[in-house]
Amino acid sequence: MLSFQELSARFEEKFNQRLFPAEPPALYDAAHYILDLGGKRIRPLLCLMGNELFNDISPDAYHVATAIELFHNFTLLHDDIMDKAPLRRGKPTVHKRFNESTALLAGDVMLVKAYEYLNKVDTLYIHRIMDIFNKMAREVCEGQQLDMVLEQRDSLSMENNVSMNEYLQMITLKTSVLLGAALQCGAILGGAGRGNQELVYNFGKNLGIAFQVQDDYLDAFGDPEKFGKQPGGDILANKKTFLLIRVLDTADKNQKKALLEMMDQNGEEKVSKVLQIYRDCKVEEWAVDLKKEYMGHALNDLEEIAVLSVRKNRLRELAEFLLNRDM
Amino acid sequence: MLSFQELSARFEEKFNQRLFPAEPPALYDAAHYILDLGGKRIRPLLCLMGNELFNDISPDAYHVATAIELFHNFTLLHDDIMDKAPLRRGKPTVHKRFNESTALLAGDVMLVKAYEYLNKVDTLYIHRIMDIFNKMAREVCEGQQLDMVLEQRDSLSMENNVSMNEYLQMITLKTSVLLGAALQCGAILGGAGRGNQELVYNFGKNLGIAFQVQDDYLDAFGDPEKFGKQPGGDILANKKTFLLIRVLDTADKNQKKALLEMMDQNGEEKVSKVLQIYRDCKVEEWAVDLKKEYMGHALNDLEEIAVLSVRKNRLRELAEFLLNRDM
Repeated sequence: MLSFQELSARFEEKFNQRLFPAEPPALYDAAHYILDLGGKRIRPLLCLMGNELFNDISPDAYHVATAIELFHNFTLLHDDIMDKAPLRRGKPTVHKRFNESTALLAGDVMLVKAYEYLNKVDTLYIHRIMDIFNKMAREVCEGQQLDMVLEQRDSLSMENNVSMNEYLQMITLKTSVLLGAALQCGAILGGAGRGNQELVYNFGKNLGIAFQVQDDYLDAFGDPEKFGKQPGGDILANKKTFLLIRVLDTADKNQKKALLEMMDQNGEEKVSKVLQIYRDCKVEEWAVDLKKEYMGHALNDLEEIAVLSVRKNRLRELAEFLLNRDM
Repeated sequence: MLSFQELSARFEEKFNQRLFPAEPPALYDAAHYILDLGGKRIRPLLCLMGNELFNDISPDAYHVATAIELFHNFTLLHDDIMDKAPLRRGKPTVHKRFNESTALLAGDVMLVKAYEYLNKVDTLYIHRIMDIFNKMAREVCEGQQLDMVLEQRDSLSMENNVSMNEYLQMITLKTSVLLGAALQCGAILGGAGRGNQELVYNFGKNLGIAFQVQDDYLDAFGDPEKFGKQPGGDILANKKTFLLIRVLDTADKNQKKALLEMMDQNGEEKVSKVLQIYRDCKVEEWAVDLKKEYMGHALNDLEEIAVLSVRKNRLRELAEFLLNRDM
């Protein structure tokens, strides 16, 4: 079996070609601009690893991995328009570098391109792969819509809090189902049966939730030296996170009042005050436990997959690598 | 063979169901809002007619017809955002009625839904149908991008006019390839060979161009009583049309100067003055001839298709119905 680095190198070799034609330049340059911003390419690699769990990697797995990465970049592009985000990976977003209309269209054409890659898949698997992909794509759109709806709610009103269940559902749709679907598509192409497909999908879904909990945790409690940036970005932006939803569920009246007052503030003092309330409400320990819970679900799913344990090593390693970044 | 009205009724019966789930409401209500604005459903009917040209209508033709109409509405939705259009069919556009983010996402999810319908197609045809559909979808995006690029050019500068060839290429990509692809997909499902597929595709493409020429003509020279609205909308909006491109190719220096001066003006006087220059430059006769030329190409393509002539009657009638609206 290939190491993560080997898989990554093989995928990059195929993906880092010019996927789009030259004309019309603005449209396809915008598409390549976001692809060239890079990234860890975790999702396509999950597709290849889901494939290798059951068989040697098939050429079709590279096609689906490419479709998955194109789809992921399509969602980033359209989400950045909706969020009016100025930066992505430290560079101007596509709608800032080009314009909103070109960014919108470049996203559209990337989604179409994803389906062009899906259509390369062998007739034996095409319907099933398209089924999984389409369901996932619909759910990711639903997740983005839910995210916007939840963000618009007054986060500190007593009446109208976002419940943990709603937030969990949104995160699952917006980010986790794509990890699950990437793995499942790979598994299908490896000849996995329905039971194993479901397990590998759930492994990805639970991994995605654990990863998101950790992301929120690191943004608040991460060691700046190891984390690479000053913590507190989510707090400064009043962003809804697992931690904020939790603190609103558990804070007493005075703590809620203090949080409410800090919504309009800014700077380091805001971060340290909010973190103190997080600590008083034991949000830090709760987040560690929640991450462990979903990590546990994920590893259980992985254990239950009916293939030789040694084939699961790569996915185990990846899960540990992703989730043990200083937490 | 079914009459146009019968085909239309059969399609509407299937299409006018709730295609999307209820949750999340904003997202799917926005999608249904534009679908419920109605329309002549020409494109899905072309798919059914392309199918019936070669065989009895197959259930798969309805799936593809649905995908085509969803795709068409997806493009209308995203185009309206890009054009900042306030109205569609006399009603507020989706981004006005809801908001831009919801409109953008509703468009995305409609495109995904189109692929869900394509994925219902029999394994025997799925790859070929997806090929035609994906190529068409990519070209429509390219056409919209070209449209924006051409609109941004200074239409009356002597140096930088939009050439007729550029405009024709844009219109072909933006509107005609969808008609061709709808017919070709139907033909594929009817078992048509490659040669017949190409002919029916070209019939649709040429019909689309002829239709666009006529649309531009009626907007300028249509009889208000028969056309249903006051002509001159395109002139008032300084919109690039076949007629404007032509007049800029043929006007002398003084006529060009007069046109340039009128760009900032408004009202009935502008319309009548511009129309006078159109007439002086024989743009009216030229447009009638251009429409006839493409109509002729379309009917030639239709004649060459190797099926019994009687099977072509419906498409002949439709072409004549679409193109003989008072011109």
